[in-house]
Amino acid sequence: MTMLESHATGTSASLPEWLGATLPILQAPMAGVQDAGLAQAVSTAGGLGAIPCALLTPKAVSEVLEQWHQAGSLPCNLNFFCHQQPPANDEIAQQWRSLLAPYFAELGVPLDAPPSGAVRRPFDDQMLATLAPFKPPLVSFHFGLPAPELVQTLKSWGTRILSSATTVAEARWLAEHGADAVIAQGIEAGGHRGMFLSTDLSTQMGTMALLPQIVKAVDVPVIAAGGISSRAAVRAAQALGASAVQVGTAYLLCSEARTSPLHRASLTSPAAEHTGLTNLFSGRPARSIVNRAMRELGALRHDVPPFPYAADAIGLLRQAAEARGTVDFTPLWCGQNASDCRTAPAADITRHLAGLE
Amino acid sequence: MTMLESHATGTSASLPEWLGATLPILQAPMAGVQDAGLAQAVSTAGGLGAIPCALLTPKAVSEVLEQWHQAGSLPCNLNFFCHQQPPANDEIAQQWRSLLAPYFAELGVPLDAPPSGAVRRPFDDQMLATLAPFKPPLVSFHFGLPAPELVQTLKSWGTRILSSATTVAEARWLAEHGADAVIAQGIEAGGHRGMFLSTDLSTQMGTMALLPQIVKAVDVPVIAAGGISSRAAVRAAQALGASAVQVGTAYLLCSEARTSPLHRASLTSPAAEHTGLTNLFSGRPARSIVNRAMRELGALRHDVPPFPYAADAIGLLRQAAEARGTVDFTPLWCGQNASDCRTAPAADITRHLAGLE
Repeated sequence: MTMLESHATGTSASLPEWLGATLPILQAPMAGVQDAGLAQAVSTAGGLGAIPCALLTPKAVSEVLEQWHQAGSLPCNLNFFCHQQPPANDEIAQQWRSLLAPYFAELGVPLDAPPSGAVRRPFDDQMLATLAPFKPPLVSFHFGLPAPELVQTLKSWGTRILSSATTVAEARWLAEHGADAVIAQGIEAGGHRGMFLSTDLSTQMGTMALLPQIVKAVDVPVIAAGGISSRAAVRAAQALGASAVQVGTAYLLCSEARTSPLHRASLTSPAAEHTGLTNLFSGRPARSIVNRAMRELGALRHDVPPFPYAADAIGLLRQAAEARGTVDFTPLWCGQNASDCRTAPAADITRHLAGLE
Repeated sequence: MTMLESHATGTSASLPEWLGATLPILQAPMAGVQDAGLAQAVSTAGGLGAIPCALLTPKAVSEVLEQWHQAGSLPCNLNFFCHQQPPANDEIAQQWRSLLAPYFAELGVPLDAPPSGAVRRPFDDQMLATLAPFKPPLVSFHFGLPAPELVQTLKSWGTRILSSATTVAEARWLAEHGADAVIAQGIEAGGHRGMFLSTDLSTQMGTMALLPQIVKAVDVPVIAAGGISSRAAVRAAQALGASAVQVGTAYLLCSEARTSPLHRASLTSPAAEHTGLTNLFSGRPARSIVNRAMRELGALRHDVPPFPYAADAIGLLRQAAEARGTVDFTPLWCGQNASDCRTAPAADITRHLAGLE
């Protein structure tokens, strides 16, 4: 194998060797605010970096993987979304635009402007074919798992599979359908909820309750996510049975992250003390710092186009608003504890989380 | 002082001696499902038992305290609600009854039946006068703190004061207004959210995120609550800086608890895997196992009478439904992790949580 050997960490649940990391720290894949640079820094430091592929075309993924392998043999977590994508629905899209029309007018965006920005794609045959030459040791999914035949092909390569569970039922389902480890995503986590068996937000639990119940429920290793942003929180998660942790928010201010200056400014402002789940920006609930769109429209609505189509219209407002220097329509993904965010190299943060400095 | 001496626990944040406990385990006050029997068992085991007084008249509180002192000099946490009680509003009450009318009919309860059941009272002058002869060493409040002059009188007796914070802002407020320790109540907790500075549920955080931020924000000791039901969770909370933990749900099946057989059956059924915040049963958001009322009416409504008046009408349905053996209208208070509930003496649970067995 080409990966670094793992070392015992002295915790009760051992770090799976096949993760390829020496430290029990996974950097959470964060589409839109990072590229392979952050992943490389984290993996070089001994953690496990992640490359979010949800916004990338197969061609782009192929290029990223070429570059990754040219840089050495670092471990890497390739992350994909695997939602069921419904066909676009013009009527719902038009209703959504109508609702947002006053903002289009305010920002001087034509109401019939074509959708812009990258599209979130589900993992499919084409992406699988893109991965074939690389046979990646590790991939992760959000929103469940892709179709069984895709999982089977990945397994035939020896690829290990991670996915997020937001309930005990989802954890059991993932373990039964091929996940080699389960990420217990507590309600504190920033970005998209990985929920896939239910759309009922009342099923979502805090990490302190979710993690130990998933550890009890499944035989595969469990990785804790949600509100983990300090060495103390890593120890807490390990006490609850986690084999490793996945950390997103704490990396957002890293020099290697591509977090925009506006997003960074929000993260270091008092606004970051109040996050909420919202489906306005994509169609699925995700945790963002509360901004104008969430306050004025209501953070969770039943009439937004289904994932990922909600982004089409509000993405135009985002661009126009950001050009004016505001985050009124920006998805400000952030977990419930931004107070540990530091402007530091990702290696320092990784080592700090692991108790090495 | 009449309390047991505290001993160092070897954790980073020390257990305040004035709590009177030797173990860093507080039993959460749970009005309606416990009396002084549970408190006595926990305090005898070295933890800190709590007597919920929210449903008791001043006379009843006086009697409980007489009995408590006759039984010895155990430490005790006397808990009160301190909400602002609005005057009863007949119109809102009538609308609430009309909404529930189909259930009144189904259960054969006259729609004009007088409200029954105990009333949740806020801490007031009369209750203060009731406490005066006892000068209790410790009281706790839910929903903030009572009026400054009441706090001042308690302080003049040397009484220590605890209260729950559900946000960092509430923790700061409590520390500035006389709380000697703050209970960080994570979203996982069963029963009523202690929130008092905001009614916005999106401000509520998981314990993993809330606890360390409150520990950073205030100088007083912080007690962790929400999802803490095992020795591992106690260690996790201590890793995050908690001086002690407050545990409710894990005590609900104790022999000394007064949890009803129907409530006990729900706690040990798969239904307990799904809890939700609901204001149907009292008017304020509280975490209950999801039942028929929550499913059919929607767990959170804007048209319920304000706390505590919502209980008047739905309490009649509860009585009638329970008489038929169902929990359709019962507030099934429960945290997000009932999987650790055991039918055992409270002393065993207390000692287990503290790592003594």
